[in-house]
Amino acid sequence: LFFFMGMSLQAQDKPSSDFEQFNDQLKNEYFSIGGLLQTIGDYQFERVTGENGFSVGNARLQVYGEFDNKFGYQLQTNFVSSTALLDANMYYNVTPNFSVKAGLFKSPFSYEYLTGAAATDFVNRSSVVNQLAPKRQVGLQMQGKVADGKFKYTAGMFNGNGFGTNANDDDKFLYTARIETNSEIGDNSNNTFIMGLNASYEESDNPTSGAGLLSQLEGEQLLLGADTRISYQKMMLAGEFIYSTINADAGWKYNPYGYYVTGGYFVTPKTQLLARWDYFEGDFIGASSESIVGGVNIFPTDFSEVQLNYIYPVDQGADFSQIQLNLQIAL
Amino acid sequence: LFFFMGMSLQAQDKPSSDFEQFNDQLKNEYFSIGGLLQTIGDYQFERVTGENGFSVGNARLQVYGEFDNKFGYQLQTNFVSSTALLDANMYYNVTPNFSVKAGLFKSPFSYEYLTGAAATDFVNRSSVVNQLAPKRQVGLQMQGKVADGKFKYTAGMFNGNGFGTNANDDDKFLYTARIETNSEIGDNSNNTFIMGLNASYEESDNPTSGAGLLSQLEGEQLLLGADTRISYQKMMLAGEFIYSTINADAGWKYNPYGYYVTGGYFVTPKTQLLARWDYFEGDFIGASSESIVGGVNIFPTDFSEVQLNYIYPVDQGADFSQIQLNLQIAL
Amino acid sequence: LFFFMGMSLQAQDKPSSDFEQFNDQLKNEYFSIGGLLQTIGDYQFERVTGENGFSVGNARLQVYGEFDNKFGYQLQTNFVSSTALLDANMYYNVTPNFSVKAGLFKSPFSYEYLTGAAATDFVNRSSVVNQLAPKRQVGLQMQGKVADGKFKYTAGMFNGNGFGTNANDDDKFLYTARIETNSEIGDNSNNTFIMGLNASYEESDNPTSGAGLLSQLEGEQLLLGADTRISYQKMMLAGEFIYSTINADAGWKYNPYGYYVTGGYFVTPKTQLLARWDYFEGDFIGASSESIVGGVNIFPTDFSEVQLNYIYPVDQGADFSQIQLNLQIAL
Repeated sequence: LFFFMGMSLQAQDKPSSDFEQFNDQLKNEYFSIGGLLQTIGDYQFERVTGENGFSVGNARLQVYGEFDNKFGYQLQTNFVSSTALLDANMYYNVTPNFSVKAGLFKSPFSYEYLTGAAATDFVNRSSVVNQLAPKRQVGLQMQGKVADGKFKYTAGMFNGNGFGTNANDDDKFLYTARIETNSEIGDNSNNTFIMGLNASYEESDNPTSGAGLLSQLEGEQLLLGADTRISYQKMMLAGEFIYSTINADAGWKYNPYGYYVTGGYFVTPKTQLLARWDYFEGDFIGASSESIVGGVNIFPTDFSEVQLNYIYPVDQGADFSQIQLNLQIAL
Repeated sequence: LFFFMGMSLQAQDKPSSDFEQFNDQLKNEYFSIGGLLQTIGDYQFERVTGENGFSVGNARLQVYGEFDNKFGYQLQTNFVSSTALLDANMYYNVTPNFSVKAGLFKSPFSYEYLTGAAATDFVNRSSVVNQLAPKRQVGLQMQGKVADGKFKYTAGMFNGNGFGTNANDDDKFLYTARIETNSEIGDNSNNTFIMGLNASYEESDNPTSGAGLLSQLEGEQLLLGADTRISYQKMMLAGEFIYSTINADAGWKYNPYGYYVTGGYFVTPKTQLLARWDYFEGDFIGASSESIVGGVNIFPTDFSEVQLNYIYPVDQGADFSQIQLNLQIAL
Repeated sequence: LFFFMGMSLQAQDKPSSDFEQFNDQLKNEYFSIGGLLQTIGDYQFERVTGENGFSVGNARLQVYGEFDNKFGYQLQTNFVSSTALLDANMYYNVTPNFSVKAGLFKSPFSYEYLTGAAATDFVNRSSVVNQLAPKRQVGLQMQGKVADGKFKYTAGMFNGNGFGTNANDDDKFLYTARIETNSEIGDNSNNTFIMGLNASYEESDNPTSGAGLLSQLEGEQLLLGADTRISYQKMMLAGEFIYSTINADAGWKYNPYGYYVTGGYFVTPKTQLLARWDYFEGDFIGASSESIVGGVNIFPTDFSEVQLNYIYPVDQGADFSQIQLNLQIAL
């Protein structure tokens, strides 16, 4: 009896921040609420597309949880879109090291794409990931860990046409797989080395849907990708390469591909400087681009971030430089 | 003083499952959160409409509650649709046995339609209910109980054109009423006998809206229905019949009607086998169909369900058989 | 130790209403849930536009909070619309008397518009506010207080085309500012005198967007407004005037303007009678109107309200009178 009283009173004695109280109250194993708000400011010296001004980058709300380490669920919305649904899935942990998942969720391809919108290095993801990754899909997935969690594998079967129509549009499927290895550098859990290999194959009989650039024609697409991310003390180094082979039923063949290399350094505990080389070759089916992105990420608190990006398009020249500002609260 | 201390400490002593904790925390009289996630797999041997593949059956979130047994409210969304609103209503308990309700909610017609999506016997509702029931409407309703709750009545007045435009489209209304009797079989509250009678009348001056099949022309519709459901030990028997009389202003008269008969049996405490005869006669204004549906419902936990259905279309033949799988989490 | 025990037990001793418990549990400084449900009944003797019937006035849900008096956020949705987003913003309190805000929110113009939908005097806002106020916008704002909070100022820069496209549509901005003074009458905090001055300037290069009536053409608009609200014992007196100067690029100039004067009186603690003179001169670019609105507001509880309005259109005659009923639950 005294034990519980002691605990309870101790808890009330300790002063804690509002954010700690938020986490205590709204992040339980079986039910958590999450949110992401982003306000974007966008300015380009010589505007090419769109206009200078403001936008709501994200207005997300999600609930998720896991019951007794067995059944899990996630429902996430982004209210900036007319169809607000982002994620609607459930999973079952068959063993602690093997799970199956069903519903709408991110198909397992690309480290940067699988990184949550609140935690990306820059305001926008890289060109190659935006143009080629298969993104959110409706389907089934299995995932597991081997060798004490050092290796993770994920493989899934999906409709291949995103959420849009909320049904398969062509009786053909998208198959995606990813292997990831995650190791500590020198017994320090803050120093990590991550490497991933991604593969995806899709046939599409519908000329207006399909993952990535396959959404433009009927045919088949093979995607191969590799990514890595090294965090060592204040330093971060990351890179990703994706290569696509599209065989159109009409006879044409396309090989769009691209990559990015990113370096980052924490100049203070709450300020990170970043630079990225961002390259994409569209091979007549996508828009090619080549740019250098400089960034500053400032983290005033655990739940807030200010991102300032300067994008220099190497292929177009300094007049077409773009500045992006992201004000963010992520709960 | 000691009394409260004791209670509180006892509660902390008892170990409970995550789902019990979820209910403790998120289901209060005055505020509850509910959710429903369904992932559907759909396969037809000779596909007629649509394609084989996956879909998100439901991605629902709702909040509801009742203040001091007097004022109640419900707000429910389904994010698979672009307009996510399903229910938005409030009610007032004038007496414990008589209430009035206003807003958007299920109009009182058909036992199967009034059964929540998480608790239907099969993956989809019956043809006759899908085609004829007036479904969710905006309007007013009164409901009450007599004879110690053994008889319930509900009657409402609605726009008659669903939620779509969120306003009446033709200055004409839909009137719906239902009487239900609910009795125990032999003093055991698990053995119940439910019987309901439904009636609905609507005039529509708008050729593209109106409840059920009246949405196809200007005119008036009278709907009459009867339903029953008997649960006795491991057995369940249910049936429903709906008959429609549509008088088109253009002079034609239609009498679409249909029914289903369902039997179920719990072969284990968590596994139910089901069979249904599903019949609908469209009378030139709706699509006729006749099928046998076999089903297995598995309940791994109180909040999860797996439904597997095999649909044999008697009128088309085995080649057009369809298999539906529903993976569900309902909170 | 005893202090905390005492507090906790005392709290458990006091019986409290469900609504007090709701507020205890769901309204914290760092995270609050709010909701607004309205069911509207609308009847016009000689119908001009629309039809007599019911509608869902609002089906809103919001979350909001403030961390350690520094970072605040708000996310509000209204599910009656296909794009449900109403508010998505964050703010930072630089000092207790000065804040900056970013995202989607109400631009600071007009007392009645800045009054929440749950607390307006009548079922609908006045014609002049509906037609001229710049309403919700995406952008940045600063706000502050001087003279012990007696004077408040707010100034913002916005895209000027509402949320719709979630981006600026023309590289031009809307600038809005408001000054407000708030004083007690005779040392009683229930007796207050509020006065506000509003100004707004916008250039628009897009013929189909822009704030208020500027959404109909390319050009510039200057809005000037003044409002006041006096609450003294059971009495309330309020008024607002807005004057617009629109210079179309095509050469034309328009001066739509309007005003309302409202008086209210609580005949019982829970029943308020209201009358409004509502005038709007559209000057060939908006629809002119002149009407008298009578209203009864009944507050059965702190969270519920019934509003009954009778609108007499002075310019059209009694045959075109309209009756509006609002049933509301606001949490």
